[in-house]
Amino acid sequence: MAAGSGIPMVKCYLNGVKIPGLLSLEAFICKVGGVVMAILGGLACGKEGPMAHSGSIIAAGLGKGRIRLCRKKRVSLYESFRSDHDIRDFVAAGAASGVSAAFGAPVGGTLFSVEEAASFWNQELTWRVFFAAMVACFFTNFLLSSFKGNPNHLSAPGLVRFSVFKDLSFDLIEIPAFLIMAVIGGLIGAAFVFLNYKLTVFRKKFFQKKWIKVIEAGVVATCTGVIAFLLMYLTSDCTDKQPYDSHAIVTKLFCEENKHHSMSTLMLATPEGCLKALLHDPFGMFQPGTLALFTVVFFFLAVWTYGLSISSGVFIPSLVLGAAWGRLFGIGIIHLFPGDPHYQEELGKYALIGAASQLGGVLRTTISLTVMLVECTGNISFGLPIMITLMISKWVGDFFTTGLYDMNIEVSGIPVLPWEPPPLCDDIKANDLMSQPVAFFNQKEKVGNIIDHLKTETFNGFPVTSQNLENPSEPGKLLGLIMKSQLLVLLKSKTFAPEGMLQPSTIRLKDFRKYYHQYLKMDEIEISDEEKEYTMDLKPFLLPNPYTIDPTFSLPRLFKLFRGLGLRHLIVVNENHQPVGMITRKDLAKFRAESRRGLLKIKHLKIEDI
Amino acid sequence: MAAGSGIPMVKCYLNGVKIPGLLSLEAFICKVGGVVMAILGGLACGKEGPMAHSGSIIAAGLGKGRIRLCRKKRVSLYESFRSDHDIRDFVAAGAASGVSAAFGAPVGGTLFSVEEAASFWNQELTWRVFFAAMVACFFTNFLLSSFKGNPNHLSAPGLVRFSVFKDLSFDLIEIPAFLIMAVIGGLIGAAFVFLNYKLTVFRKKFFQKKWIKVIEAGVVATCTGVIAFLLMYLTSDCTDKQPYDSHAIVTKLFCEENKHHSMSTLMLATPEGCLKALLHDPFGMFQPGTLALFTVVFFFLAVWTYGLSISSGVFIPSLVLGAAWGRLFGIGIIHLFPGDPHYQEELGKYALIGAASQLGGVLRTTISLTVMLVECTGNISFGLPIMITLMISKWVGDFFTTGLYDMNIEVSGIPVLPWEPPPLCDDIKANDLMSQPVAFFNQKEKVGNIIDHLKTETFNGFPVTSQNLENPSEPGKLLGLIMKSQLLVLLKSKTFAPEGMLQPSTIRLKDFRKYYHQYLKMDEIEISDEEKEYTMDLKPFLLPNPYTIDPTFSLPRLFKLFRGLGLRHLIVVNENHQPVGMITRKDLAKFRAESRRGLLKIKHLKIEDI
Repeated sequence: MAAGSGIPMVKCYLNGVKIPGLLSLEAFICKVGGVVMAILGGLACGKEGPMAHSGSIIAAGLGKGRIRLCRKKRVSLYESFRSDHDIRDFVAAGAASGVSAAFGAPVGGTLFSVEEAASFWNQELTWRVFFAAMVACFFTNFLLSSFKGNPNHLSAPGLVRFSVFKDLSFDLIEIPAFLIMAVIGGLIGAAFVFLNYKLTVFRKKFFQKKWIKVIEAGVVATCTGVIAFLLMYLTSDCTDKQPYDSHAIVTKLFCEENKHHSMSTLMLATPEGCLKALLHDPFGMFQPGTLALFTVVFFFLAVWTYGLSISSGVFIPSLVLGAAWGRLFGIGIIHLFPGDPHYQEELGKYALIGAASQLGGVLRTTISLTVMLVECTGNISFGLPIMITLMISKWVGDFFTTGLYDMNIEVSGIPVLPWEPPPLCDDIKANDLMSQPVAFFNQKEKVGNIIDHLKTETFNGFPVTSQNLENPSEPGKLLGLIMKSQLLVLLKSKTFAPEGMLQPSTIRLKDFRKYYHQYLKMDEIEISDEEKEYTMDLKPFLLPNPYTIDPTFSLPRLFKLFRGLGLRHLIVVNENHQPVGMITRKDLAKFRAESRRGLLKIKHLKIEDI
Repeated sequence: MAAGSGIPMVKCYLNGVKIPGLLSLEAFICKVGGVVMAILGGLACGKEGPMAHSGSIIAAGLGKGRIRLCRKKRVSLYESFRSDHDIRDFVAAGAASGVSAAFGAPVGGTLFSVEEAASFWNQELTWRVFFAAMVACFFTNFLLSSFKGNPNHLSAPGLVRFSVFKDLSFDLIEIPAFLIMAVIGGLIGAAFVFLNYKLTVFRKKFFQKKWIKVIEAGVVATCTGVIAFLLMYLTSDCTDKQPYDSHAIVTKLFCEENKHHSMSTLMLATPEGCLKALLHDPFGMFQPGTLALFTVVFFFLAVWTYGLSISSGVFIPSLVLGAAWGRLFGIGIIHLFPGDPHYQEELGKYALIGAASQLGGVLRTTISLTVMLVECTGNISFGLPIMITLMISKWVGDFFTTGLYDMNIEVSGIPVLPWEPPPLCDDIKANDLMSQPVAFFNQKEKVGNIIDHLKTETFNGFPVTSQNLENPSEPGKLLGLIMKSQLLVLLKSKTFAPEGMLQPSTIRLKDFRKYYHQYLKMDEIEISDEEKEYTMDLKPFLLPNPYTIDPTFSLPRLFKLFRGLGLRHLIVVNENHQPVGMITRKDLAKFRAESRRGLLKIKHLKIEDI
């Protein structure tokens, strides 16, 4: 759970899919420790994903009042009184706070959480998410400023800053150049996603054992180190320009006195340091050949690193990659228009646009990224070109592949519902996709039957019907819905009695809550053969009036129901109000439209059980 | 329709309420002409509301492919092929573009549209809205820059700019001061809303005739002018400081040579000029007495002006008001800490915080306003204090009254659904609030009956049932839903026949579209007495599988259904699938929780028919 970026998983969680272990304390510890080591180890990865994920875990823990420690143990802080729905809101705020703290971008973080993750928009929720993100940003600022010895001045809003650009402005005639860069960013982004997709599928197939994963991570780390030093030794790009960042690592290597090796400033720095150098260092710091070589090598390293079983993000690598070829592009422009010294000063502008378009080409979330980049650069007037390039690179990228996070989710087979129903599906009816015959319970049901159903069916909810007097094996009229988790608690507390006797009412609402986050399992419940003959009265526990539909309901409207109401299952009833089928989120998530390379096709995804 | 801000009406429209004439060309012309005159006339009003509204009208016109001109005539551009739902998206984008062009704040405009107006959040929609807002900002920038003679430089992003603050920063110890200002802003904002509420109710009661409205507008304009000149003549605040803005109007009046009268710089400028002066003019430009007097007078002028039958917004007046007392507050701080000349330079900071908290206290939309103000000031590091003050002032204001726009909507009695169901309503069932007995049609219905129902019922949709053989006056099983507008088109095209004969199938889908935006009226349809005996077969036209619920469905879940699916009416069916009642948006909007002054009460609103 701690492996990878974490954002795709949090996205699935917020979409309404439960992923056991995603928000456990172990995941938090591994994630935080892992990301520190991965970045210090010099891998081509970033920290925004892990920060968003660890923010989510803290938020979920605070929300529940307890954090899952190891398997069954928990640290209970206070009585949990919140529903799943509330916890989801906490997680959205936690993800936003993580991003906000990482980039010092509270608005960008909020929008990122909403755009990338949250499935249910709500004004009140956004408000709270924004508040959390603001406080996160404020405290990061305060702590970092204190660390620098000036806690009052609040001068360090986030962990990653691109530093302020001075007098960033653009001319109308530069826009075509930005457009070309956007197209390049989209193409490289699509290539990134495509290669990483192949790699992820390969990993899923062959690298399933734990020790293979560890070895792979070790191999990648070794290769990254070896390649970095090889690049430094094999190139000879010496310069006497001073780097912008006073903390930059400058090595002489084989260069003359007073000069330093420019490839080393890229290779020995952390990814953020590298990004700053590419954005702000003066013209002439890097030879075009150095930049081109760096771009190619870093591209493959980043593709290889993302998806590895380490905690790592893809933001910073994308930005570094884009800044590298953006700077190269800028140098090209300067060679084309040599007369204008103005451009030399503004080389960083092209690096920034390159970074933006690369990020857009890989991630495809435009609004939040625009805001985040604007907040990071501290310059608003440059928002328009950033936005245009992000938009174009998204379009170009979308023509070839989905975004990187969506690709991850697709490969993992988690049933996430997209924003819109797939096109061309008006003819598909509830009839065609519902599971039937449906597993149902009578209002008074034999314990043995309940146990059998729970063992054989994968549904999390069951319709409860009145007894069908004419044909006892068929369902009667629908009375309500009962959840699998409720049934397990009822069985565990032995809320049943021999037929004709009064059922003991030992169970209270508190008990349901107590077991709620423990994921009770069937095997943990012991029922004797005698008890299997007892009956359980489900009437007091069922949810009355579940949402129901007619078998001729069309797929797009079904989609709207699931999406709009955040449903997990829906009962299909015939005209006599007898349940005839069940539709779950998975049944809908199977239908996914693929509109790549200009072609549109409807795909049935294989959804795995998690 | 062109009177007032327009934002509350657009908000209602986007919430799903149809308001005839809101998006007509006449409203556009009046709005645009009106706002230019109101601002040049020196009234205490702004232009953001009218710009958002006129943006919406343009967008709706483009979406429909035609604009309603006068009553029945339209300018048809192309065949309309879009549904209500799509037009709503267009309108959301139009509103965002208007705000974006006004303030040069594309992100803020997008968020404003989403936060204040849109009821249905959707990633794709936001994307498009953001794109529209960006393009609007870009073209405003281009046109204004061209107007200034430098089209390439793109230096004028919006119509209203606060100009760039230099080196805006804040110390941790200043935050308590900001908090006090936020509370003041919230209190003044609540007073503003309360007084304006009383005034609006008074106007609704007594100022219904057109000529009274015109006279009132004239009286307010005259008073504004007279008061402005009285203030200038009665005060004697002479200064020799130079104003920040080179376009500022400087008058000597009774002052000595080389000095000018500072009240005149506030009173002779447009509201934006006044705002710039308050934010940027140097220390010593205004005496505290001048500012205090200006604050009080301007407060009452702004309260009086808003809600007048002219097109006017409330943004700029709120900002001016806040900047005035914020500057006064800043002067107070300087007197408290006289040793630190640092504060003198940063007087504008307090004016800005005052403006932000005043705006928050009046409007209560925090996220978009934070972003908008940050975009307007061009300084991101100051986002945190702006956000904190906005949040506190919202809380303080919410304790006493609702926001200004919500107050407007409440007074107008338009059935807008809030974001969350009211609390304490779990016991209210569909049974309690549905309209019954329900008006229904049989599958084959007599034309006379249809006409009678359409004349007597106010519903826009009717359930269609199969014939109830046992008791013909009771409904049979529900077959579907038919809209009033559909029935009118069917009647108009005489799609009926004497009983037993084949119904003419002259009507095509195109005809429904043709009449769709015309709001056909019952009186316009002529049906002879003979034809009233004919029957109409509704089967081919009804919407099958409408959303239905059980009579015991609870109010909070009903609310979720209406809000999540954007429904307008819902049929309540009994267990035999016979319609027993109808629930409309109005039935739900009646329940509104009032949590003012710490007390919580559930209120039944009186909803008017529009």
